[in-house]
Amino acid sequence: MAKIEITLANGAKKELDSGASVLDVAKEISTSLAKKAVAGQLDGKLVALDYKILNSAKLEIVTKDSEEGLQVIWNTAAVVLQAAIKEIYPDIHFGMKGNVEHGFYCDTDNGSEQISVDALPAISDKMAELVNAKLPIASAQLSEAEALKVVDGDPYQAKLVSRLAQDGKVSVYQVNGSTVLSSGVVLSNTHDVKVFKLLSVAGAYWEGKSSNPMLQRVYGTAFYKQKELDAELARQKEAHDRDHRVIGNNLDLFFVDPKVGAGLPYWMPNGATIRRTIERYIIDKEVANGYQHVYTPVLMNLDAYKTSGHWEHYREDMFPPMDMGDGEMLELRPMNCPSHIQVYKHHIRSYRELPIRIAELGMMHRYEKSGALSGLQRVREMTLNDGHTFVAPDQIQDEFKKILSLMVEVYDDFDITDYTFRLSYRDPKNTKKYFDDDEMWNKSQTMLKAAMDDLGLDYVEAEGEAAFYGPKLDVQTKTALGNEETLSTIQLDFMLPERFDLHYVGADGQDHRPVMIHRGLVSTMERFTAYLTEIYKGAFPTWLAPKQVTIIPVNQKAHGAYAEKLRAKMAAKQIRVNVDNRNEKMGYKIREAQTQKVPYVLVVGDQELEAGSVSVRKYGQKDSESENNNMFIDSLLAEIQNYSRTGDNAKNDNLIK
Amino acid sequence: MAKIEITLANGAKKELDSGASVLDVAKEISTSLAKKAVAGQLDGKLVALDYKILNSAKLEIVTKDSEEGLQVIWNTAAVVLQAAIKEIYPDIHFGMKGNVEHGFYCDTDNGSEQISVDALPAISDKMAELVNAKLPIASAQLSEAEALKVVDGDPYQAKLVSRLAQDGKVSVYQVNGSTVLSSGVVLSNTHDVKVFKLLSVAGAYWEGKSSNPMLQRVYGTAFYKQKELDAELARQKEAHDRDHRVIGNNLDLFFVDPKVGAGLPYWMPNGATIRRTIERYIIDKEVANGYQHVYTPVLMNLDAYKTSGHWEHYREDMFPPMDMGDGEMLELRPMNCPSHIQVYKHHIRSYRELPIRIAELGMMHRYEKSGALSGLQRVREMTLNDGHTFVAPDQIQDEFKKILSLMVEVYDDFDITDYTFRLSYRDPKNTKKYFDDDEMWNKSQTMLKAAMDDLGLDYVEAEGEAAFYGPKLDVQTKTALGNEETLSTIQLDFMLPERFDLHYVGADGQDHRPVMIHRGLVSTMERFTAYLTEIYKGAFPTWLAPKQVTIIPVNQKAHGAYAEKLRAKMAAKQIRVNVDNRNEKMGYKIREAQTQKVPYVLVVGDQELEAGSVSVRKYGQKDSESENNNMFIDSLLAEIQNYSRTGDNAKNDNLIK
Repeated sequence: MAKIEITLANGAKKELDSGASVLDVAKEISTSLAKKAVAGQLDGKLVALDYKILNSAKLEIVTKDSEEGLQVIWNTAAVVLQAAIKEIYPDIHFGMKGNVEHGFYCDTDNGSEQISVDALPAISDKMAELVNAKLPIASAQLSEAEALKVVDGDPYQAKLVSRLAQDGKVSVYQVNGSTVLSSGVVLSNTHDVKVFKLLSVAGAYWEGKSSNPMLQRVYGTAFYKQKELDAELARQKEAHDRDHRVIGNNLDLFFVDPKVGAGLPYWMPNGATIRRTIERYIIDKEVANGYQHVYTPVLMNLDAYKTSGHWEHYREDMFPPMDMGDGEMLELRPMNCPSHIQVYKHHIRSYRELPIRIAELGMMHRYEKSGALSGLQRVREMTLNDGHTFVAPDQIQDEFKKILSLMVEVYDDFDITDYTFRLSYRDPKNTKKYFDDDEMWNKSQTMLKAAMDDLGLDYVEAEGEAAFYGPKLDVQTKTALGNEETLSTIQLDFMLPERFDLHYVGADGQDHRPVMIHRGLVSTMERFTAYLTEIYKGAFPTWLAPKQVTIIPVNQKAHGAYAEKLRAKMAAKQIRVNVDNRNEKMGYKIREAQTQKVPYVLVVGDQELEAGSVSVRKYGQKDSESENNNMFIDSLLAEIQNYSRTGDNAKNDNLIK
Repeated sequence: MAKIEITLANGAKKELDSGASVLDVAKEISTSLAKKAVAGQLDGKLVALDYKILNSAKLEIVTKDSEEGLQVIWNTAAVVLQAAIKEIYPDIHFGMKGNVEHGFYCDTDNGSEQISVDALPAISDKMAELVNAKLPIASAQLSEAEALKVVDGDPYQAKLVSRLAQDGKVSVYQVNGSTVLSSGVVLSNTHDVKVFKLLSVAGAYWEGKSSNPMLQRVYGTAFYKQKELDAELARQKEAHDRDHRVIGNNLDLFFVDPKVGAGLPYWMPNGATIRRTIERYIIDKEVANGYQHVYTPVLMNLDAYKTSGHWEHYREDMFPPMDMGDGEMLELRPMNCPSHIQVYKHHIRSYRELPIRIAELGMMHRYEKSGALSGLQRVREMTLNDGHTFVAPDQIQDEFKKILSLMVEVYDDFDITDYTFRLSYRDPKNTKKYFDDDEMWNKSQTMLKAAMDDLGLDYVEAEGEAAFYGPKLDVQTKTALGNEETLSTIQLDFMLPERFDLHYVGADGQDHRPVMIHRGLVSTMERFTAYLTEIYKGAFPTWLAPKQVTIIPVNQKAHGAYAEKLRAKMAAKQIRVNVDNRNEKMGYKIREAQTQKVPYVLVVGDQELEAGSVSVRKYGQKDSESENNNMFIDSLLAEIQNYSRTGDNAKNDNLIK
């Protein structure tokens, strides 16, 4: 029998007979490895344990505790799930199956009686039945014609057959009499997916196109060990509890309705209050730091974006231009830079004025694919805390440091602690992707790095992450779902001043070219609010809370007037306060205020009325404290003034790292 | 000779010979009338004094002191102007001539050497020459062919020949050898236009289309008496001094650049400060009055505007829709109502919640013709102080009164006194133009009127001025140029709740239809800022002024530190203050602060440093007063808090009525 040579991951080589399986190789290495093995990576391609190796190749044994091992069990679970569904709904059609970040899914179309979340227990039971029966999962290779016969009558599966076919062959799996198409590696027994959990059902368009039928996607996850599943479910619960979309719904902060506009959020009064507070804070902060705030149009002649290069490099992220007749083409701006350049150019500028800091809460529109849209985090209309500083070249380092200091000050006020600095350079191997000026790139990248080192800040360096017109500093953080996200950015730009022919008159009376620094302290109002919602878990600090104080009279008749007097007193000081005088039990009202995460609940009864006091209950605390009403108001105002968090319990309560 | 019967304006009848001229009729009435006569209205058509009347007709004698009399002298002056220009520039081409609100114009095309304002003195001199020579203006009727020969080589005039021809005839006038086309009534001697003034030159597209050549339009005015001209020039100077575009430029408030977007204003830092102050004021005011502020997207699925009826009735004022692919058509909203309806519909509403008041500074886009655009007054992108109240039918009257009271309160704070209330009804003769529900119209019109009467407010009633979906109350005022303008509006709407199928759950547990009230207290930020700029003549009250205080140290070395200490102290209290420490003379600095209309200039020297005082000079006053610095700051803060005007000199300084 012919011999083949197998090169292992560590470089070691094994000689085996041609036709040996992946499992044979694993056994050859060690019994313990063979026990953990679930698949192989053969010359980079994932194959099943029983795959017979005919030629010399590189092989890595895929084990249960690896990332690929999870892909294998999820792929298998999806096959068993499909078989289980088919047993319950014999006439159902199936769309795609696949793996997602933390599990698997299977798309279904059951006509007029679509699968909903209510059907999950029955499907889960049926899956468990198949698992417990320890049924073999037999694989076979069919020709396209044979496969088409198997999926007869299912229009989606029929399309998938030709897409999945490799060398004219399609892999199918037999589970308890059902035949399931699958392109990935599938384990050999239903019992291999005994640790599984079905999670949810959501609509998903066939092929991701909204013009196609909407299928019902069943999500689930599976692991090799129960404790791994438990950990994942705990993580999901935590992520869910922090998810700004969930909290946003519970606290009535915002909503998005794709029927009136995908990725176009509506800020409800509570969310709008938070946003307005952030906006006023950031404008006041910037104005105090020498920024000149402007309002510029959200529309601009398309020519400006041709000049800026956005139309060339960024068109697919832009909205379609509008033909206004009379030769004018207007474009919803994807960035504010050209607008602020107009402001700069409106006057002849002198070196004495520099740095000129133009800032705006600038509304922009970017075309994101509908599948990428998510709550307030990924939207199509956004308002950026934007600013552009125009400096003389010798002011770069100083201005960069000023911006960084302001940034850190702002983070402090919002109690943001979990972030990293990332310096983004162009990809030195693919410089064609970027604005063509080697000297500019080298010079500016060096300057940013020097400034960071000077300030003694920690940072990572990321090649290939720069924008097309310059290197940048990003402040990176993570969403509740674990996605990395940019909170702030400072970006040097020698290109736009060139393209828009910007000048200032120097001390020598000659024209000079300024340098532009793009910067955003807290990104867009949308993304920042989503981020804050997640880090605060909805318990916004008092200064940001939509409702800051709820007053509950013990008895409306006896204490209602006192409660109203207190309310008016606080409202006159711009405190967001209400009296809950509904005809409900006091305990119910307190619980509701807690659910709405109101920072302070004040209960007022006989004792309080007599003493001019309030019984104060802070959010997240069980006990109340009695306090003179004026003292309470004074300390509340100080708390708001100082951007303090309500209670220590909320402070740094960030479990997602 | 045949007799004809002339019926005069007062109904009296005169019998004359057929062929009598208009002047003959005037003489028949009285010698004094004949002296004042300049033309006749014959059966409603303006004719010259020497027009021979062949048949019985109605005739009104047009006199110098009438509106039509002005049209005649302006028309004549335009003919003389064209003749004068032709003498100076023999090869020039002429576009349209015509009358505008306060004078006349004549369009010219002089090829590579266009007429500019610099040419006006020479043209004016030439006109005066023709006037003083007392030349006859001979009229003639030419055939089209003859007229075309006369204008040979002038492409614009050639087009005008066929447009002006009536029954194959074209009127031309001979002035000193020049032949001038004119369709209106022309006086018979150049000396008739002895009181004239050429005013300005501005570009104007041929036929008003930007794809056509740009002609140079020469503007002028003329009167029968010198004192009339003097009054008009004084009015124009006052209007110019108040014109928000002029002030906006002088105080660097905003600019519009048609090259980057027609009708899309850029708010410079000074203008943005005013706007932001107005926005914060109005939001705080509304929130304190029970409005819930939201942010909703500027884009919406076009379907919503089809449902609302805007697409059907208002399409020509809307921007072109954007095709997003995937079947989504997005539209820049022309109104915020459908957005606030989404907010309403997001929850099931109970009668207990009503009235629900949704408010927003809502950005909208409306397609105005480029010729209609003007500074901040007429724009294509605007942010409306918008609000929609959803009420039960029995709450209409009460809510309407609440809105009116709030409106008057806001006017007080802005010191707005010159306005009138106008109730706009549908046109009873053309009810097809409006939403079809007679009962709704009658009921709602009656309700508005009853509420006004109830409040004892004066108002005018305007039939045919309603919006297509309901009657409204408008608050009308005038711009510096004398155009009427709407400052605020309250509008009932029974239609949109119907179209969008809005509900609330009544006390009976059943669904009921709410009524919607659209209201804006101060119109758009653009229009309101323009209006305030004009009524304040740029001298904004301290609370709105972009810069509130300028501190001028007598000697930078000796008093600079004290000036800076004062600045920091005020800035910490959010006062907009700067120190003018430039190397310039004190008088120059004071004058500049006055030009910029800074409410307070503080001069600090030895005496002030020693006493901890400031030498205070209010805007518009010549004298300074010494004041303790803390007392000054306290009274300044109180002034800002109370929205007071700086000095009485500015109060009610509104000459344009």
